[in-house]
Amino acid sequence: MAINVLIEKIKKTNNPSVFGLDPNLSFIPKFILEKNYKEYGENLLGASKAILEFNKGLIDALCKLMPAVKPQSAYYEMFGAEGVLALSETISYAKQKGLYVILDVKRNDIGTTAEAYANAYIGKTKLSENNFVSSFYADSVTLNGYLGIDGIKPFINCCNEFNKSIFVLVKTSNPSSGDLQDKKIGNETVFENMAKLVDDWGKLSLTNSNYSNVGAVVGATYPNEAVILRQIMKNTYFLVPGYGAQGGKASDVANCFNNDGLGAIVNSSRGIMCAYKNGYDEKDFEKAAYDEAIRMRDEIVSFIK
Amino acid sequence: MAINVLIEKIKKTNNPSVFGLDPNLSFIPKFILEKNYKEYGENLLGASKAILEFNKGLIDALCKLMPAVKPQSAYYEMFGAEGVLALSETISYAKQKGLYVILDVKRNDIGTTAEAYANAYIGKTKLSENNFVSSFYADSVTLNGYLGIDGIKPFINCCNEFNKSIFVLVKTSNPSSGDLQDKKIGNETVFENMAKLVDDWGKLSLTNSNYSNVGAVVGATYPNEAVILRQIMKNTYFLVPGYGAQGGKASDVANCFNNDGLGAIVNSSRGIMCAYKNGYDEKDFEKAAYDEAIRMRDEIVSFIK
Repeated sequence: MAINVLIEKIKKTNNPSVFGLDPNLSFIPKFILEKNYKEYGENLLGASKAILEFNKGLIDALCKLMPAVKPQSAYYEMFGAEGVLALSETISYAKQKGLYVILDVKRNDIGTTAEAYANAYIGKTKLSENNFVSSFYADSVTLNGYLGIDGIKPFINCCNEFNKSIFVLVKTSNPSSGDLQDKKIGNETVFENMAKLVDDWGKLSLTNSNYSNVGAVVGATYPNEAVILRQIMKNTYFLVPGYGAQGGKASDVANCFNNDGLGAIVNSSRGIMCAYKNGYDEKDFEKAAYDEAIRMRDEIVSFIK
Repeated sequence: MAINVLIEKIKKTNNPSVFGLDPNLSFIPKFILEKNYKEYGENLLGASKAILEFNKGLIDALCKLMPAVKPQSAYYEMFGAEGVLALSETISYAKQKGLYVILDVKRNDIGTTAEAYANAYIGKTKLSENNFVSSFYADSVTLNGYLGIDGIKPFINCCNEFNKSIFVLVKTSNPSSGDLQDKKIGNETVFENMAKLVDDWGKLSLTNSNYSNVGAVVGATYPNEAVILRQIMKNTYFLVPGYGAQGGKASDVANCFNNDGLGAIVNSSRGIMCAYKNGYDEKDFEKAAYDEAIRMRDEIVSFIK
């Protein structure tokens, strides 16, 4: 019942928001980067150690205030195996601190390959007949549904076996998301069709709450589309990127919520990670992130009530 | 002009096929797995070392016979950071041996995140103003175009700056690929629309051959669709999965080629990696892979002439 765990954390913190950990090097306070380059070298290892230190600071600052964290895998993969180790350690640390970890990987593949991804991120990897280990063990991952149910089913199996959840891309927050997603299939757009698939797939992993373990990614930058999608996917939790830096407003994201005050969790990455750049000393990056997270929470909550 | 490099290698070997390195543990000869578990432990490190040893054997056996190799990232990610290190070392080894490396990652994201993925796999990662390093540095990656041009452009920029290529999913080889891809947008399917986008995107990275650096993934299991797609994307190289284990025949993949005898490269993963299971001693896995690669080449070439 993994989505239920997220819902409980959202209720407990009264905070339907999630902080992204997208550690672009330019987001990291200089004193952290310089310290780690000095200790480990100006190389992939030094950068990865700096990322981990920055992440731990942000997690410490926000773990009581926020229900969830969303590391974006790209910013770790770009530092090679060292970066991926920092990702794995970030996930472990966030889970220790009680955060729900949504790993943003947008994976999509078929058959045994999809199983391999599912096992890697929300399942267990088989080493021999009696030896299974967790490689990353996030609580949830983002997925791309272009390949149909073949690409989703192995993840749903992990949701059911290990109490996890997934979020499938439906309407993304970027300007060109309409290149394909807005095209019309009969009277409906591609994204509406994807929404119906997601709603169907959710029936394969129901919980004892109103929401299935199969969630949807719906961009904050498309509030009118969100109204339509909220109708199509009544029992689907929405992960909402695009708030803040990308232009999505709190009044826009309100459309992603249901009347029960639930149904969506809004992401902010840059806004929180770089909050210290707005008049704080960079050594106070944790306080700056905390202040911004409070501001964001209050703003969103004021619109959904 | 990275696609031209692939074309030259295909011409030189007279072999339009690529071997996949999808090192499912059950594909690895037992003597390799046991040796590495004994030396490094039955853990993620031991498994990753076994994968690397198996991969190097296959690369040694096939590097003169075949133009390209396609590692599938999922099978490395499932072994955590240790697995990703084995992937990075596999890519380096394959490039040393003269193979064109198509990394199958099917990444899809937007903005700075898409840039991070592009830099990670076919570009360079910035450590400071004057320090850029290659984290993986494959020759090519597979991508998912559901997010539109925003998700593709950063990779095209790397194609142009570092002489690389990309392959975008158009019609995938799996049974449920039609869940979305076969739906009709007016008179055309979603996959035909994606094909037109890929054809357009190719104009952003033309070469001095007939082919752009923006290729397409077209499954061997849909030969009728391949005929249509070959017409829409005249200047697009096709990466063709689904031959062999998934049911695609050489007569089917013939539809993916142009009249110049070029235009497609056919993948085999399990068929080559597990060839030793067909009556060979497992210590002869390299010879078995070589024999199967010859058989596959001859079969495909006989149909495209």
